[in-house]
Amino acid sequence: MSPERFARINALLDTRQPDLTLCLEGVHKNHNLSAVVRTADAVGVHEMHAVWFDRKGRVAGGTAMGSQNWVRVHHHQEPTSTNTLRDLQAQGMQVLVTHLSDTAIDFREVDYTRPTCIVMGQEKHGVSAESIAAADHQIVIPMVGMAQSLNVSVAAAVVLYEAQRQRELAGMYAAPRLSAAERHRVLFEGGHP
Amino acid sequence: MSPERFARINALLDTRQPDLTLCLEGVHKNHNLSAVVRTADAVGVHEMHAVWFDRKGRVAGGTAMGSQNWVRVHHHQEPTSTNTLRDLQAQGMQVLVTHLSDTAIDFREVDYTRPTCIVMGQEKHGVSAESIAAADHQIVIPMVGMAQSLNVSVAAAVVLYEAQRQRELAGMYAAPRLSAAERHRVLFEGGHP
Ligand SMILES: C[S@@+](CC[C@H](N)C(=O)[O-])C[C@H]1O[C@@H](n2cnc3c(N)ncnc32)[C@H](O)[C@@H]1O
Ligand SMILES: C[S@@+](CC[C@H](N)C(=O)[O-])C[C@H]1O[C@@H](n2cnc3c(N)ncnc32)[C@H](O)[C@@H]1O
Repeated sequence: MSPERFARINALLDTRQPDLTLCLEGVHKNHNLSAVVRTADAVGVHEMHAVWFDRKGRVAGGTAMGSQNWVRVHHHQEPTSTNTLRDLQAQGMQVLVTHLSDTAIDFREVDYTRPTCIVMGQEKHGVSAESIAAADHQIVIPMVGMAQSLNVSVAAAVVLYEAQRQRELAGMYAAPRLSAAERHRVLFEGGHP
Repeated sequence: MSPERFARINALLDTRQPDLTLCLEGVHKNHNLSAVVRTADAVGVHEMHAVWFDRKGRVAGGTAMGSQNWVRVHHHQEPTSTNTLRDLQAQGMQVLVTHLSDTAIDFREVDYTRPTCIVMGQEKHGVSAESIAAADHQIVIPMVGMAQSLNVSVAAAVVLYEAQRQRELAGMYAAPRLSAAERHRVLFEGGHP
């Protein structure tokens, strides 16, 4: 590795947010997947999750997401996201499902400086009932027009940039937050995914 | 038209923001175009612009954008966006180009309660030099990762939801802002586009 590249990767790792993640539920269109990973990278997400309720989606997603980014995507093939979300909660994360319901709170009311996982639903069917039940909060992005929902990669970006805004104000990009072990792993074991 | 539909359209028109618009320069992928129009609708954009530097793009865009939305898209086939942007400035709008440059200011520093046009660049080539020259400001969305840019529909959404945030705080969604003539036109001449 050239010294310039080594410095570039170190600079990237200095801004990574190990306690901000996404969980995508069956989001299967390649342009949506790659847009979400690209935005996640841009706000410093280090690891994220994709739950595939069927194998077909899993393969397509794996192909689309791997190489061009510096975000580690953990793929889970399970009938629901419940195990994945419970694991994150056990690590101290609040789980927020994005959901267009009357009981959801405005996405800007949440404190994103807390360890946070944001769950995004499938293009057609939205988030699963199991994930809504497992979540700490449902959040919604306000809309005033005729369209009933936003594109999933757009919705992910709007929420992630609210998290970025709050974390920037709180100084969370100003000092490295990744563990030494994880930094070492990415630098010397070829990075990820 | 049923009374319910009439009420629904009136409610939509009550939140329309006639002085918030977009200008897309040669944005030609259908999934990007439709995601941008869907987000524009969701924040109350009433009219927007698409400049096509070649005919091919124009036709694809026209097909993709028309029907499912309540945002009027004006198509311009011109060698640059300069005329379109000058017209908007003559109507009192500030023109902001989204551009990944060192001289751009953070997108959150702008006052979006002013009449505003946001210029989005083509997927591959970004905004044109002519539009950068014509604009009042260049704005950039901060990024900390390896990816060099965001997807164009994602970038449009992040800026539009900052405009929505500021306009909501300023009470600009609380009372109708569309002219009576334009409301009448949409209600009784079949809407748009
Ligand atoms: C196209 S939407 C799914 C629409 C689905 N028919 C429904 O009602 O849930 C895909 C995903 O984008 C996210 N999303 C879209 N618009 C949203 C909004 N206004 N607020 C919060 N999340 C949204 C959610 O994660 C949703 O599951
Ligand atoms: C994929 S980008 C174009 C990349 C092009 N290579 C360039 O350097 O301009 C497409 C459009 O998305 C918008 N965009 C993407 N990322 C942005 C960012 N971080 N800040 C502002 N605008 C952005 C701009 O309108 C840009 O022209």
